[in-house]
Amino acid sequence: MNWKMILKNLGMIVTIEGGLMLLPTVCALCYREWFVALMFLATAAVAAAAGTTVVLLTRKGDDVIFAKEGFVITALAWILMGVIGAVPFLLTGDIKSPADAFFETVSGLTTTGASILRDVTAMSRGCQFWRSFTHWIGGMGVLVLMMALVSDASGRFIHIMRAEMPGPVVDKIVPRVRDTAKILYLIYIALTAAETVFLLAGGMNLFESLIHSFGTAGTGGFSVRSESIGAYSPYIVWVVTVFMLLFGVNFNLYFLLLIKKFRAAFGSEELKVYFGIVGVSVAVITANTLKIAGNFSDALRNAAFQVASIATTTGYATTDFNLWPGLSKMILLLLMFVGGCAGSTAGGLKVARVAILVKSGRRELAKLLHPRSVSSVRFEKKPLGDSVRFSVTNYFALYALLLAGVLVLIAGEPFDLETNISAAVACFNNVGPGFSAVGPMGNYADYGVFAKIVLSAAMLLGRLEIYPLVLTFMPSTWTKK
Amino acid sequence: MNWKMILKNLGMIVTIEGGLMLLPTVCALCYREWFVALMFLATAAVAAAAGTTVVLLTRKGDDVIFAKEGFVITALAWILMGVIGAVPFLLTGDIKSPADAFFETVSGLTTTGASILRDVTAMSRGCQFWRSFTHWIGGMGVLVLMMALVSDASGRFIHIMRAEMPGPVVDKIVPRVRDTAKILYLIYIALTAAETVFLLAGGMNLFESLIHSFGTAGTGGFSVRSESIGAYSPYIVWVVTVFMLLFGVNFNLYFLLLIKKFRAAFGSEELKVYFGIVGVSVAVITANTLKIAGNFSDALRNAAFQVASIATTTGYATTDFNLWPGLSKMILLLLMFVGGCAGSTAGGLKVARVAILVKSGRRELAKLLHPRSVSSVRFEKKPLGDSVRFSVTNYFALYALLLAGVLVLIAGEPFDLETNISAAVACFNNVGPGFSAVGPMGNYADYGVFAKIVLSAAMLLGRLEIYPLVLTFMPSTWTKK
Repeated sequence: MNWKMILKNLGMIVTIEGGLMLLPTVCALCYREWFVALMFLATAAVAAAAGTTVVLLTRKGDDVIFAKEGFVITALAWILMGVIGAVPFLLTGDIKSPADAFFETVSGLTTTGASILRDVTAMSRGCQFWRSFTHWIGGMGVLVLMMALVSDASGRFIHIMRAEMPGPVVDKIVPRVRDTAKILYLIYIALTAAETVFLLAGGMNLFESLIHSFGTAGTGGFSVRSESIGAYSPYIVWVVTVFMLLFGVNFNLYFLLLIKKFRAAFGSEELKVYFGIVGVSVAVITANTLKIAGNFSDALRNAAFQVASIATTTGYATTDFNLWPGLSKMILLLLMFVGGCAGSTAGGLKVARVAILVKSGRRELAKLLHPRSVSSVRFEKKPLGDSVRFSVTNYFALYALLLAGVLVLIAGEPFDLETNISAAVACFNNVGPGFSAVGPMGNYADYGVFAKIVLSAAMLLGRLEIYPLVLTFMPSTWTKK
Repeated sequence: MNWKMILKNLGMIVTIEGGLMLLPTVCALCYREWFVALMFLATAAVAAAAGTTVVLLTRKGDDVIFAKEGFVITALAWILMGVIGAVPFLLTGDIKSPADAFFETVSGLTTTGASILRDVTAMSRGCQFWRSFTHWIGGMGVLVLMMALVSDASGRFIHIMRAEMPGPVVDKIVPRVRDTAKILYLIYIALTAAETVFLLAGGMNLFESLIHSFGTAGTGGFSVRSESIGAYSPYIVWVVTVFMLLFGVNFNLYFLLLIKKFRAAFGSEELKVYFGIVGVSVAVITANTLKIAGNFSDALRNAAFQVASIATTTGYATTDFNLWPGLSKMILLLLMFVGGCAGSTAGGLKVARVAILVKSGRRELAKLLHPRSVSSVRFEKKPLGDSVRFSVTNYFALYALLLAGVLVLIAGEPFDLETNISAAVACFNNVGPGFSAVGPMGNYADYGVFAKIVLSAAMLLGRLEIYPLVLTFMPSTWTKK
């Protein structure tokens, strides 16, 4: 294990997080929250100083890392960011307990959007900004940001990128990792800016436009209104719906559009399945909730918004879908598992994985009938190797086993099965709100400290797609072979 | 597709089912239920006559069948048995609606034990007997029974056996399929007889001893008391607990004991995992329900009974576990998925599959660290080939996808999520009772006709382990290649 490189990368991450805290500092200053600004500035300064010191102390030495270090760096970086990001919440007194502050920060960074706040409007503007900004940071990934900023002498960043980026297969869209990271962030910034402009055009003020763009971009879901997006006009609802869906698309496709490969972009199989699932779900839920909504246009808007919000694992709400009929709730529950596209900021299993699971299952059935046939499974117009299929089915098995573990660990909490199951599912898939007590109008405040830590771990498992976190805590990773 | 052989086998199955209906006829006669006896006799006569005619008409011709025919015969045989088995319930008027009668019969045959009866005590003795006897028939499998009775000229019965027997790998325990089937049935009969004796010794009358032995042997769970096993003494509760666990063990191990291969039998890895899961679950639930039970011995007995009942997917109850704390309910819910051992009469995913999923997942993690290592996964002291591991992970994926389908199809029913989810899970895994409205003290009577058919299909999918039913309804199975 290359300890020096691990420390060096962690040092860089902490420095970058410190730097990113200057934005909430500025926000707090704008709103004349002097004490809040000071607390953010102090945290930023300490983090940057400590981080830089570590980087300087570890700058010499072997900079070669392998897959193993990539996983460890990713897991430890995310945990560390959760800890440091929680500090301003505690220093300002906006969140009282360390477990709550850690939960809220991890929920932000992993773009889950599950909250322990009973009243978000009581929070200072600075903290509100930071809370939503963590969505934006975590959406594309802070390690990807680091790669875009720092030059990679050894060319080994790909191991970190693979560990942090979601999806069954991660590859550079251009030969150099640094360029790939830069392109991804430029697309990310451009889309976020576009949404902000559309929201401003709808009469939302700048602060709330930024907050909700961050929440959409990261597919996070934190809002500064108790009624979430339900507090705004139909125009705003539609803007957010469209952008949630856009951020649930594989970013590689945007790159393909940029380099004018329109056919390749729109021909994506995952894209078609994604919009197919969304379309069917919206149609069924619109019909199913027509009576509750009273008219077609409200039913369609709420259904489209809620499907986009849950399928992309954002978690915004325009209505209390807890009160919807069973069929609509069940569809939302299943959408939580599917999630958005691979290579997007969305969580869940990812559409590509679900599509591969279906195709792989169908292939297995065909093999029972014709044991000696060798027809291959195709995805995205390419034959799918056994190793990819196997790694996807294995991933799904691990996912289910870990989810079962989370279910048992939080089952001691005094809630009904619907609350506990949907809490575990919503956190693991980075959705945020579940049903019953943790529904869109509820929160996670009443969970115990232990359950909050377990659910934070579930969010990290979901965001980092299991492997980095599990491997880092497996003893065999640390023993020499 | 060898149509003649399919029809011939179906004819034999229908004849056998007719023959088996003579037992409830005798039972009805003993209780002087003349009309009920007549209805059973009439159904038996018609079934036997029709079945024999088909067998005679198809006796000539090519008797070679392949895996494909094995699956189709199994699926169609089970559906047909559900339809014919439902006839006496309707003729006697003990169940009024055809959907209900079909549901109850399929629930019996698949050893699920989910009931649409609001008051089982109102049913005639003959029908009560038949209802429980279907558990016994379905437990070991009626096709296995056919193999034990009929000589297999072409030696192709193994395809049918593989399609009907549960578990990831099915193999003959002795070279000839017919002998294997005979040995399995002899063990099955011996264990059932032993339980009946133990129950009689506890003061239970002969009728109820038989009923509950059938329910235990098939891991079904139908009772003739509204309070299920809760109506009896602690001695009876312990007897049923032990036998439920015994029927959840792979029957091959009993054969190993018979031929004095004690080491091989007790060295079974699946057996250890099975009892490990049961032991831990009992310990946790005992501690968790101590307060409710009031004293240790009641808590232990209820916990042991309920864990055995759910883990083996029997579904008997001694207490309303719906009222247990969340942790205990969550453990029971997860046990429903695990189920009993492969090659037993229990349902669920099977312990062997879950163990292979865990090991396969661990192997995948190790491969991420050491991509070039070739360490193999071992199960039951043998290296586990990639193809077995792959077929297990694929099975799990198909299982999850189909379960999701069932969830959506029954979600339109006016129940809460807890009811609908647990109903789908309990039916698919052949457990029977779920939680909330379908809990141990509830029933499935209020589900609509469509949902009852979907849940019946789920029970068949679970009992036949997906493939036979899905393949039979896949158009490509029927087109020539």
